[in-house]
Amino acid sequence: MILHGYWRSSASYRARIGLNLKGLAYATASHDLRKGEQKAEAYLAANPQGMVPALALADGEVLIQSPAILEWLEETHPQPPLLPADPLHRARVRGMAALIGCDIHPLNNLRVLTEIRTAFGADQGQVDAWAARWIIPGFEALERLVSRHGRGWCFGDRPTLADCYLIPQLYSARRFNVALDAFPRLLEVERAAEGRPAFQTAHPDRQPDADQA
Amino acid sequence: MILHGYWRSSASYRARIGLNLKGLAYATASHDLRKGEQKAEAYLAANPQGMVPALALADGEVLIQSPAILEWLEETHPQPPLLPADPLHRARVRGMAALIGCDIHPLNNLRVLTEIRTAFGADQGQVDAWAARWIIPGFEALERLVSRHGRGWCFGDRPTLADCYLIPQLYSARRFNVALDAFPRLLEVERAAEGRPAFQTAHPDRQPDADQA
Repeated sequence: MILHGYWRSSASYRARIGLNLKGLAYATASHDLRKGEQKAEAYLAANPQGMVPALALADGEVLIQSPAILEWLEETHPQPPLLPADPLHRARVRGMAALIGCDIHPLNNLRVLTEIRTAFGADQGQVDAWAARWIIPGFEALERLVSRHGRGWCFGDRPTLADCYLIPQLYSARRFNVALDAFPRLLEVERAAEGRPAFQTAHPDRQPDADQA
Repeated sequence: MILHGYWRSSASYRARIGLNLKGLAYATASHDLRKGEQKAEAYLAANPQGMVPALALADGEVLIQSPAILEWLEETHPQPPLLPADPLHRARVRGMAALIGCDIHPLNNLRVLTEIRTAFGADQGQVDAWAARWIIPGFEALERLVSRHGRGWCFGDRPTLADCYLIPQLYSARRFNVALDAFPRLLEVERAAEGRPAFQTAHPDRQPDADQA
């Protein structure tokens, strides 16, 4: 398999964690979002959306969208499970994942920040405030949900899909200088993840395309 | 079951379509987003995020986030299926759903439009341009995906989760005056949906809390 991604893309980071938790080997293909490489014709033929990540399977089929990639991983490689068995519990995990994947991350990715700079002349302070505007209420809700449902991880006592979303979002929050002291349960999950090779090797700084600066 | 929602919320509209396609009866509880009713304390106790939709089950459990609600519906009420059987095909459907649910809709919902008005002084023309900025490239990619995978619907010849997302997004695009002529395959899906009671009765204008104006 080949994971098309970018070191700093949160959604690519999610997919890397999922692949690692499943113990799957994969090659990577980097598309530098700052240079617009994800809009190159060859890549658009495989992923008409021209975004990352996409997962190219051994037979040449290409999966797009990290939520779909992660669910596919779970269905085709059930061990270790990244969703609990009970449908209600699965909905809890997917609810936390979607809270991040729909209501936090899409508002803070590079194309949106570029748009508020170009359309509205936002400066760096306004960009950081914009990011915080979506991260903080999302994390406040998540903190309550993890308090309710987590025992060291977002849900229960082992990593799930929700953790694949949370860890990259915490990394992103730091880049925008969002203070995280108000979210002790989320930081507890982060500490748990820091002890696991699946999360360690997925970290942006460990990717071959990471800035060396 | 009680669906907490709002007539014009795209994500609530999705959940209504899913419930209807499954043939499930449900009551509705309306939270007027323009008045901030989704932030009322009683509702926050059930849904700490204070957003719609949420689905209150018969036993009092409350599910949040439309992607999680729709997957729960599929798992607990498998007939008629809203996902194909094959994992690759499921990933295709979920990829289209996530393209809308992550990369189009979250950028155009009320809280975001309010933010660009208040933080950047955007006027109605700029609000419409902002919405189009995300809808058009998303629909361009979807048009190609539906051409590849659809036969009258987004995927194959019957409604799936992807259609639950697409139909509300088309409704929303019209509100922002986005021209849809360039998307004949998406409009074909819309015509198919218009012939189905599950989609008809889910339409915002048919909801009890719809503006009478």
